Amino acid sequence: MAAININDKIATVRELMEQRNLDALVVMTEDPHGSEYPAKYWKFREFLTGFNGSAGTLVITAKHACLWTDSRYYIQATKQLRNTCIELFKYGLPNVPDYVTYLTDVLPSESTVGVDGFTISYEKCRNMKKKLAEFGIKIDYKVDIIDEIFAPREPLPNDEVIEVDPTIAGLTRMQKVEQLREIMRKNNVTHYIATALDDIAWISNLRGNDIEYNPVFYAYMIIGLDDVNLYIDPHKLTSAVSHRLMEDGFKLSLYDHFEKNLGNIPANSRVFFDPSTANTRIIQAIHKHAHLVEGKSSIELMKSQKSPDEINHIYSSMIRDGVALVKFLHWLEDNVGKQRLTELDVAQKLIDFRSEHNLYMSESFEPISAYGSNAAIVHYSPSLEGCAELKPEGLLLLDTGAQYADGTTDITRTIPLGPVSNEAKKDYTLVLKGHIALANAMFPEGTRGVQLDILARQALWQVGEDYGHGTGHGVGYCLNVHEGPQRIAKTDNGVELRAGMITSNEPGVYREGKHGIRIENLVVCEPACETEFGKFLKFRTLTLCPIDTRPILIDLLTDNEKKWLNNYHRMVRATLVEFLSEDSDKQWLINATNEI
Amino acid sequence: MAAININDKIATVRELMEQRNLDALVVMTEDPHGSEYPAKYWKFREFLTGFNGSAGTLVITAKHACLWTDSRYYIQATKQLRNTCIELFKYGLPNVPDYVTYLTDVLPSESTVGVDGFTISYEKCRNMKKKLAEFGIKIDYKVDIIDEIFAPREPLPNDEVIEVDPTIAGLTRMQKVEQLREIMRKNNVTHYIATALDDIAWISNLRGNDIEYNPVFYAYMIIGLDDVNLYIDPHKLTSAVSHRLMEDGFKLSLYDHFEKNLGNIPANSRVFFDPSTANTRIIQAIHKHAHLVEGKSSIELMKSQKSPDEINHIYSSMIRDGVALVKFLHWLEDNVGKQRLTELDVAQKLIDFRSEHNLYMSESFEPISAYGSNAAIVHYSPSLEGCAELKPEGLLLLDTGAQYADGTTDITRTIPLGPVSNEAKKDYTLVLKGHIALANAMFPEGTRGVQLDILARQALWQVGEDYGHGTGHGVGYCLNVHEGPQRIAKTDNGVELRAGMITSNEPGVYREGKHGIRIENLVVCEPACETEFGKFLKFRTLTLCPIDTRPILIDLLTDNEKKWLNNYHRMVRATLVEFLSEDSDKQWLINATNEI
Repeated sequence: MAAININDKIATVRELMEQRNLDALVVMTEDPHGSEYPAKYWKFREFLTGFNGSAGTLVITAKHACLWTDSRYYIQATKQLRNTCIELFKYGLPNVPDYVTYLTDVLPSESTVGVDGFTISYEKCRNMKKKLAEFGIKIDYKVDIIDEIFAPREPLPNDEVIEVDPTIAGLTRMQKVEQLREIMRKNNVTHYIATALDDIAWISNLRGNDIEYNPVFYAYMIIGLDDVNLYIDPHKLTSAVSHRLMEDGFKLSLYDHFEKNLGNIPANSRVFFDPSTANTRIIQAIHKHAHLVEGKSSIELMKSQKSPDEINHIYSSMIRDGVALVKFLHWLEDNVGKQRLTELDVAQKLIDFRSEHNLYMSESFEPISAYGSNAAIVHYSPSLEGCAELKPEGLLLLDTGAQYADGTTDITRTIPLGPVSNEAKKDYTLVLKGHIALANAMFPEGTRGVQLDILARQALWQVGEDYGHGTGHGVGYCLNVHEGPQRIAKTDNGVELRAGMITSNEPGVYREGKHGIRIENLVVCEPACETEFGKFLKFRTLTLCPIDTRPILIDLLTDNEKKWLNNYHRMVRATLVEFLSEDSDKQWLINATNEI
Repeated sequence: MAAININDKIATVRELMEQRNLDALVVMTEDPHGSEYPAKYWKFREFLTGFNGSAGTLVITAKHACLWTDSRYYIQATKQLRNTCIELFKYGLPNVPDYVTYLTDVLPSESTVGVDGFTISYEKCRNMKKKLAEFGIKIDYKVDIIDEIFAPREPLPNDEVIEVDPTIAGLTRMQKVEQLREIMRKNNVTHYIATALDDIAWISNLRGNDIEYNPVFYAYMIIGLDDVNLYIDPHKLTSAVSHRLMEDGFKLSLYDHFEKNLGNIPANSRVFFDPSTANTRIIQAIHKHAHLVEGKSSIELMKSQKSPDEINHIYSSMIRDGVALVKFLHWLEDNVGKQRLTELDVAQKLIDFRSEHNLYMSESFEPISAYGSNAAIVHYSPSLEGCAELKPEGLLLLDTGAQYADGTTDITRTIPLGPVSNEAKKDYTLVLKGHIALANAMFPEGTRGVQLDILARQALWQVGEDYGHGTGHGVGYCLNVHEGPQRIAKTDNGVELRAGMITSNEPGVYREGKHGIRIENLVVCEPACETEFGKFLKFRTLTLCPIDTRPILIDLLTDNEKKWLNNYHRMVRATLVEFLSEDSDKQWLINATNEI
């Protein structure tokens, strides 16, 4: 049964709700693994609403249908919900209740709220349950109406997984499992349930193709002290890969058997899971007399601390990425204003240059190519919002990244295409000051990202400016471009920065209707020194690409800041020049990295 | 029954434990109000152990007696526990379990741990209970063995309370109560239980003398939507004060009746309390069918945001304090090396200068006067550790403050008494850089102290130095020199800085065996500007006293830093000079505030 339009779909949902005695239905955006971007198979919320932003929660009651999304998507959601019966709730604005508060406001006690327990994390569901219970409202988390209405539905992806080249992987999967078991023993854990897809890809040394840009595959794992169980669709496995997994002692089971098999974990086991990525259904399936041990994923923390070998590989891909970027920036300078070029054209041109290398696999996220005032929309994507034509003036913001066989990149440059306003130059220089302050930081072991965040903002704050996004996110190794657990942001997630962690450094500033500026490099955390005051860490910048000096107001930079920029450019030039075959590219690089 | 020595006391406790079937006893340091410094009446842990530091937890089992304290007190506790049966656990060192983990390690399941529920906060007791329950261990929080062994025991203090002068108080007590009721109504709260002594002093516009340096008095309050109940020893109240309280509608009851009366709160009431200062016994006494609403004290947050009038009063006391400090610093310069002076002598001399003013009431905390390497002990107090004689060389650290009738002060200066090592000069300059960076900060509304903390540390961190204490604490208005809720520190307590909050700015650096340096002013948070990026706040420095320029390595200061220091000194000079009667003091001030 294919519902014809949004309002019909909502009406059909209401019929199904009535059959099941549900007074409200909550539809989340998650897949069963808490992925940032779910596969299309899981995009039920998008199917029901027509809104395709990456964040949104739909609530349907007998009378109302409401969608919550955050400031990134206010404009897009307004457009996409037009002429539907769905009301938009702009989450984050004053006096806009969150969806749980809304439910407690509109539902009488004794009501039942339905949710598909596979697509809501255990943590979120528990919080909702607790709040609803205060008002006498129950939750039914076993609602399975998706299959009855979601048609046509993309199948669950079943591309084959590949094994990571052993020279790239660093440790073998069994070495990683053994390291995890050490942590399990220390915490008295008998069963470790892995749910996050990048955790599973990392520890199994496998990569997949189930989610665009993220080389992961749908699977679950249970790691015991003596065995490892991988739950996966067997179509994903060639017999060679299956064989090697089994040789390593992996037991293979069907993805669909995971929930049922959880019930077989013996009573009195101590079962670890991360409630932020484990879904509600699977945790409810664990044996009642097993002891649940909640915590932040240990695999995530292991994965985030890259080994020296891994960092060397990443550095190789940074060189390669830098070469493609230099060729691209040179081409852009030569061609802007001379031929018709749109935001999409230049994004594609950069992909072309990257693709020249045989280790290039794909972009690592959907490229952001935003010209002029478009760049003031932080999550602007040219394919969505219409596509601007570039003129030889103003600023172009390019936030892109690549997946190479030996590393993942993520870089933002803001490029003047011709004359730039003084206001934009000042903003550009302040953003650069913040970028440098963070790049230069030294800090004691135990420091968390929230403590460093102000370094990237201070120059802006001192003149009453700021930006509404985080300063840095973790970056995977041949994995997701966004990974945890560390981040550098205004909020505190309690995670300490550790040697080997790779994080972005990306302050920005956005003036509606005018311009958007962001300067982003990736940095790796390294030991700096040990003194009578303890051990200290610092950052080393990995990204290799000139930072445009033309919009800089040099008087606003301190001597130390100029020194950092000149050193950085010296390193970029010395590293990249030998990989450029064209003399004109070399000359462009030399000009772009001249001392200021 | 007075136990003769520590070991006898512990033996007596064990007998009492056996009578009550307790397998372990936990003795905390708190009073029933979560005070930082309890009155002597509550110092049972000190009585049992002989250790008189401000932080410590005693655990007694049938075989062991163990005391936990933190790094401030490792040396002192080691000395004071010598030749007793009590083992010291240095909390914070690696592989030293906390006391709850220790209990779970040594006690078999089915054991019972006793604790006096009046002297442990609800929050701490709940956490302990939860952890012990995982191991099948129970808590008995109604253990009352104190009276049977604590002798001689100081009586509960019963000094008379005084009313705050209405011109000083700002709002009347009923205006404050009405403001609180607005918050209560917003949160659907019917009964607000006030437990922190400074909260009670603030909202009642009363001051007491029950705790040294802190002008508070022992009492509880229950604020309803229509009535106010004050639980207090009537000996504290003159008939005039009682009369005015009753005129304002306050109902007066015995302090000792508080627990019993809590049981009379009607079922279905919504009762607010702050679990960090409310003790376990009183929360357990609340009617079972009342709904408990936990949160951070609303009174604390109201109290922390000083009104413009209050800030003006504080500024008057800052002028007065600055005058006393200038006279003192001048005297010190003239006399050090010429007569025998100890750390205690100079601390007393400063008190003498302060006492010259008729609004001076007392110091606001025990003065820290620490010379040379003594200053490297952060919580050094000359009376405890022996008292050094000052020589005309090295640095003297003076951290002192006063209670005036119209304000509370807290200031640290580090003063060279003669030649100073280059290392000390460099450290002094780095601390000053941090002090200035924080003093100069501008930041968006919603910023928390943890985000600003690095400003005070960054110059130190960049060369591998740090300090082990917080950067800033809230300061009361004619109240406790340490108050919440805001702080500036490495840890995040979630509290946003707001206009009117007064906080210390006190970076430092401490080299064992060499020197200790700290520079502390009080700052008030104020609106700075509103831009398209939002509203911004800044700090204004309130403390008025020259910062010694002699140890500064001028080349390490930026132009902006020199400008801040020169501006500060210009303000200090212009403000204080007219209040100095002696020409030689004026001349000293002029010299001390010369431009660098």
